[in-house]
Amino acid sequence: MRTIKSINSLKRELKIIKSKNQTIGFVPTMGAFHKGHLSLMRNARRDNDIVIVSIFVNPTQFGPKEDFEKYPRQIKIDELFAKKEKVDIIFYPSAKEIYKDCHLTYVNVTNISKVLCGRSRPNHFEGVTTIVSKLINITEPDVMYLGQKDAQQAVIIKTMVKDLNFNVAIKICPIVREKDGLAMSSRNSYLSQKHRQEAPCLYKSLKEAKKMILAGNTNSKSILSWVASNIKNNSSGIIDYTECINADTLMPISRIKGRAMIALAVKFRKTRLIDNILFHLK
Amino acid sequence: MRTIKSINSLKRELKIIKSKNQTIGFVPTMGAFHKGHLSLMRNARRDNDIVIVSIFVNPTQFGPKEDFEKYPRQIKIDELFAKKEKVDIIFYPSAKEIYKDCHLTYVNVTNISKVLCGRSRPNHFEGVTTIVSKLINITEPDVMYLGQKDAQQAVIIKTMVKDLNFNVAIKICPIVREKDGLAMSSRNSYLSQKHRQEAPCLYKSLKEAKKMILAGNTNSKSILSWVASNIKNNSSGIIDYTECINADTLMPISRIKGRAMIALAVKFRKTRLIDNILFHLK
Repeated sequence: MRTIKSINSLKRELKIIKSKNQTIGFVPTMGAFHKGHLSLMRNARRDNDIVIVSIFVNPTQFGPKEDFEKYPRQIKIDELFAKKEKVDIIFYPSAKEIYKDCHLTYVNVTNISKVLCGRSRPNHFEGVTTIVSKLINITEPDVMYLGQKDAQQAVIIKTMVKDLNFNVAIKICPIVREKDGLAMSSRNSYLSQKHRQEAPCLYKSLKEAKKMILAGNTNSKSILSWVASNIKNNSSGIIDYTECINADTLMPISRIKGRAMIALAVKFRKTRLIDNILFHLK
Repeated sequence: MRTIKSINSLKRELKIIKSKNQTIGFVPTMGAFHKGHLSLMRNARRDNDIVIVSIFVNPTQFGPKEDFEKYPRQIKIDELFAKKEKVDIIFYPSAKEIYKDCHLTYVNVTNISKVLCGRSRPNHFEGVTTIVSKLINITEPDVMYLGQKDAQQAVIIKTMVKDLNFNVAIKICPIVREKDGLAMSSRNSYLSQKHRQEAPCLYKSLKEAKKMILAGNTNSKSILSWVASNIKNNSSGIIDYTECINADTLMPISRIKGRAMIALAVKFRKTRLIDNILFHLK
């Protein structure tokens, strides 16, 4: 495994890889690997000749009051993890390498970047779609692997790839959870012991809601109000949103049907956790 | 030469081309070919194994009161021209093929899309950068050829390609002019006989201004005021802008030095003509 910091060096490697007609699986990350990241790498490893993982804590997707500075950085540990997953290349650029002196270009996916997490994080997805556009062009992958935990991000990136005709397939991999159900996230490390104990109630509420839906209650309002009160009753988390949405368009639905999703964001002090559950009602 | 209308068919051709390691030169156009377009094709032909020309009158780069409907369309004539220039593939998609049912993603180059032509055409360059991003991903060229006549467009696209790390080189080809100096443009056909006779005064003014600059007058204000009054005195055109700008950043300069440009836009009734002249002052 090699860690490459410059775009030019990576391009030299890519030239060799492409000349051998090897397929590239790409996992874009901000590092601080947990089992969710490792499952993306494992999927990429299974499907492709070459696996590239990028580690870049992208400043433009953090709001001014968000956790860019304190976001966990642990390149040495991440390298060990990635090596164990038989990753071929870690692309680990500096912010200067990525944005140069003067960066003027932004990619925007309208509408669906403004709902759900976009309401409390107004420029977040613009930052995400811009860096992912860059990383696709830099790493030239055949397949890009994204996690279902960031459900909105996955839909937005799929939309961008389709709309701008990027030559990359996208695979969304299932959420990996702690034993108690909490969705793996680099931000879980911010939680106090008390909040860490409360946090699994997000997934418990989603699971219960799915049961209620599959049992016949397809009224979003009633389901969401149950989810919200269950979280309030079992934790000190402050709900940012709970929504029933179409899983492909992210648009809210009042009657649950088709490929749908309940998505939520809950704040435990400054730590904002997201989670979601998918289901398909015929 | 083949005319291909669907992205999938083009992708099948590209697979064969790429497997032979052939280089691709790409000329994006809106059709209605004149000698400016043909010179781009000739440059692409000289440098590459395969030449692809796209013809697509892109609706999203026209304003609501602009000339989208009446923009000249002449695919049969264009095919004859392109064949003569030994173009290999004309990519001629429908608007539906390009934008599908639901298009949400836009590429924006901030700042430099809002100056010069961007002031009177507020969403024009967003339309341009979005379609060009798509066309780069669709045609996967090694080199893209653009005309210096659309100087601002060329700088914006170069900036976008650099900022988003698109894997394509850009060549800007010189302006091709009518015998009387008028810059070739598909929109020249809109001009009345009277306006067509007046229009060469744009280039005459630019040429005179360049002479004055090279003779030592490097004060932008004085140069621009001479250009404006010369156009007013010799035509019925209404000046949209005349500016002295840095040729790479498009930012206005008060003292002319380095790689600089005078750019202008002048309206003859509804027909808006643009032109520019480059110079390099040590």
